[in-house]
Amino acid sequence: MTSDIHDTYARLRDHARTTSALAGIDALLGWDERCLLPIKAGEYRAEQMTLLAGMIHDRQTDRRLGDWLAKLADSPLAADPTSEMGTNIRQLRRQYEKKTKLPKSLVEELARASVRGQQIWQEARESDNFAHFKPALAQMIELKRQEADALGYAETRYDALLDDYEQGALTSHVARVLEQLREQLVPLVRAIADSTRRPDVTVLERKYPIDVQHSFGRDAATRIGFDFASGRLDVTAHPFCSTMGPFDVRLTTRYDERYFNSGFFGILHEAGHGLYEQGLPAEQYGLPAGEAISLGIHESQSRMWENLVGRSEAFWQHHYPLACTAFPEALFDVGLERFHFAINDVRPSPIRVEADEATYNLHILVRFELEQALINGDLPIDDLPAAWNEKYHVALGITPPNDADGVLQDIHWSAGLIGYFATYSLGNLYASQFFEQAADDVGPLDEQFAAGEYRPLLDWLRTKIHSQGQRFTAAELVKRVTGRPLDHAPLMRHLWGKFGPLYNL
Amino acid sequence: MTSDIHDTYARLRDHARTTSALAGIDALLGWDERCLLPIKAGEYRAEQMTLLAGMIHDRQTDRRLGDWLAKLADSPLAADPTSEMGTNIRQLRRQYEKKTKLPKSLVEELARASVRGQQIWQEARESDNFAHFKPALAQMIELKRQEADALGYAETRYDALLDDYEQGALTSHVARVLEQLREQLVPLVRAIADSTRRPDVTVLERKYPIDVQHSFGRDAATRIGFDFASGRLDVTAHPFCSTMGPFDVRLTTRYDERYFNSGFFGILHEAGHGLYEQGLPAEQYGLPAGEAISLGIHESQSRMWENLVGRSEAFWQHHYPLACTAFPEALFDVGLERFHFAINDVRPSPIRVEADEATYNLHILVRFELEQALINGDLPIDDLPAAWNEKYHVALGITPPNDADGVLQDIHWSAGLIGYFATYSLGNLYASQFFEQAADDVGPLDEQFAAGEYRPLLDWLRTKIHSQGQRFTAAELVKRVTGRPLDHAPLMRHLWGKFGPLYNL
Repeated sequence: MTSDIHDTYARLRDHARTTSALAGIDALLGWDERCLLPIKAGEYRAEQMTLLAGMIHDRQTDRRLGDWLAKLADSPLAADPTSEMGTNIRQLRRQYEKKTKLPKSLVEELARASVRGQQIWQEARESDNFAHFKPALAQMIELKRQEADALGYAETRYDALLDDYEQGALTSHVARVLEQLREQLVPLVRAIADSTRRPDVTVLERKYPIDVQHSFGRDAATRIGFDFASGRLDVTAHPFCSTMGPFDVRLTTRYDERYFNSGFFGILHEAGHGLYEQGLPAEQYGLPAGEAISLGIHESQSRMWENLVGRSEAFWQHHYPLACTAFPEALFDVGLERFHFAINDVRPSPIRVEADEATYNLHILVRFELEQALINGDLPIDDLPAAWNEKYHVALGITPPNDADGVLQDIHWSAGLIGYFATYSLGNLYASQFFEQAADDVGPLDEQFAAGEYRPLLDWLRTKIHSQGQRFTAAELVKRVTGRPLDHAPLMRHLWGKFGPLYNL
Repeated sequence: MTSDIHDTYARLRDHARTTSALAGIDALLGWDERCLLPIKAGEYRAEQMTLLAGMIHDRQTDRRLGDWLAKLADSPLAADPTSEMGTNIRQLRRQYEKKTKLPKSLVEELARASVRGQQIWQEARESDNFAHFKPALAQMIELKRQEADALGYAETRYDALLDDYEQGALTSHVARVLEQLREQLVPLVRAIADSTRRPDVTVLERKYPIDVQHSFGRDAATRIGFDFASGRLDVTAHPFCSTMGPFDVRLTTRYDERYFNSGFFGILHEAGHGLYEQGLPAEQYGLPAGEAISLGIHESQSRMWENLVGRSEAFWQHHYPLACTAFPEALFDVGLERFHFAINDVRPSPIRVEADEATYNLHILVRFELEQALINGDLPIDDLPAAWNEKYHVALGITPPNDADGVLQDIHWSAGLIGYFATYSLGNLYASQFFEQAADDVGPLDEQFAAGEYRPLLDWLRTKIHSQGQRFTAAELVKRVTGRPLDHAPLMRHLWGKFGPLYNL
């Protein structure tokens, strides 16, 4: 009997690992498409990826999985839900149930709508024509409602969509934390706007040769602990981090010869994602115990290395002299203090991806609220551009110059990624809360960074977060690691701690 | 009834195309492994490729294929064997029959022996220890015999192996042509050895900056017609050309800052392969009518562009001034004549991959004869190193300094590629015979090359060879295109025509 259960578990495990091997192949195809693919090869690559996606979906909804999981869920192997086996059984069951709740026709319709939606969105954005995008968006909203209804939800339809990216999170809880954050962010942003101090950002717009940016950024990623024997760094238009296997994590970035930040902080951000992936237990690769918990927790790692580490004064006490050696022409007359202020410029802008640490979450709040209104049917799509502009005016004091740089700026909705945006802010919140705890446990971090030492922080993250796989939900993990539920206070303390002195608030 | 047959054909076609899409994915995984893969990721990538290979094999031996093909083979659709449909039915049937003749256990044993054999071969080569490789080679020979017996053959077991790379070729025919070639090659090589003229090859060993080699080689590939909107050029240790889709053909090369030839002629060689792939009918991609005929015909294209075009004086009349602009330091005092002689240095060497146009085929003859003796059981493996050295002494007047640079120099046998070497010489022979015909049809080629015009030759190749897919066997194609069966004379005319004047013979 016990040996029978173990056989069943082995079958489940091998099945999941094979599916994951195909998903890793799919990741390679996608990475290649975004980094290297010859321009005429796009159509055939899409066919190949559709083929793989179908094979993966067939495996994920294989009825044998249901049989094995039913047998295992009540077995002693699942008795401890946070053991490796318990985690794998619980999470694979959850995935199987979600996947099998969706009718195949809806899955296919969503896939088609996503491909078509992204094309139309791109055209609409290029021609600044929201009306062109409207029918595709309306169809996507309708399909996502059907998806939510098929999946089921605790309180609101939006819960079902949020769950795809942040397992178990409730819209009402996320909304409460973000609302509290907003209440404290708006006065901070206003105080900064009223300050007479302003950094000289032109020092970041001098000439930074791209090959030097590449080696400087690669060195920094290595220094914070990214292992290039198990990874790469390449160039793409819209940077991301992707994993093809237990020892194959690929970072991407883009360089602007006339703007230091986009390449360097892009690398630190993606390296943060990459460190998480490289820190997951390799022997559980392809199983939930070896996979990241949620997009929010993933984003907490990227934001931590990009902002809490990479934009700190302590980090540049070590790196600024290296930067001066690498970019003597750009930095010869700047100095650490001016440089550090420049990379921490706060300035309301209409564009999310260019936003600073202080205003970023206000951009997210706009999207989080509009998404809910669209899904709940409280906002007719016709009114969306005006609602967008109104919210930007209230939150950031600015009105987007047009829809292309307003409501059409992000690809997410066109691709069906609704419920995704909130995870960016959750990432910022988790990051600060984890970081405060890490400072308590292995600090003083500032002194370590100033000495070029990142290992204590990384080891702490490895132990507390990376190595945990999906043993806990994001909410459980935060509580276990910091002793408290998610809270806006650590992020606000960080922002005031940094921008108070810089802007003389 | 007719519509039923057409439905069957459509099913066959779609099945084959899906298999081919997976093969293209496998090609991407292999290309990535050889060009980009992080060092620690090799083991997992091998697992992914084994998974895909199994899926592809299952599809290739899918019994439905047998049913469809049986129905189609006697149908009107196959009436004209050189029509697109006729070609696809005939060739898919041939593939299916070959694949299903091999027991699955043998396929798996061959795959394992190939992976293990390559590892052991590498160790043996590094430690110059043939005895370490011997058991693996003995096992491979035994498995290849079993493979030949399972497949069946016309005259000798070796025919069955040769057929894998050069469909329909008979060992006896190939042996006769190569024997005639040898009889004329040996006196040519001896005459060159006796000549008092010698090129100054040190001009090729000056400093050629790698980034300049890359752009210069890429430009040359573009100029001869390779389309980089449907392809790439990357760096690897052992160059190759690989196709991932109808508009995705990837060349690879390696650069040596201190040796011009390896990068540049490597690019021309792979671009020759790439031009063939890019010239196949895209609408038949994934089907035999859209695939290359044989390795020999493939090699004829690479050798033609590398040697008959790229090492001609006419080619450098156009390219030498460009080379002087690209590499002013290396070439300022050289001149076209010295440069052209240097890239056509003839010098017996123990290493095949470093061999020149005149001696290259003698290297192949050694391997071709030894392979047959091993497969036929005429040569005990214990006697192989001595037999190798003896043949090198007779053919090239040299004795390899050790087994690492002798019998252990090539990876082929360790990987089970037995019957493959002959296609290199067939490629040289086909190339010269095609080239003479092209000169008759669209010449004078020399004048065109000197003016930087390669389009007439490429268009001729596109029409006569590339666009034909697998309509004909290699032997049929040579006869159709040149009016004569394969013959050693065109290659010998080319070699005397080039080396006679250079070496004052």
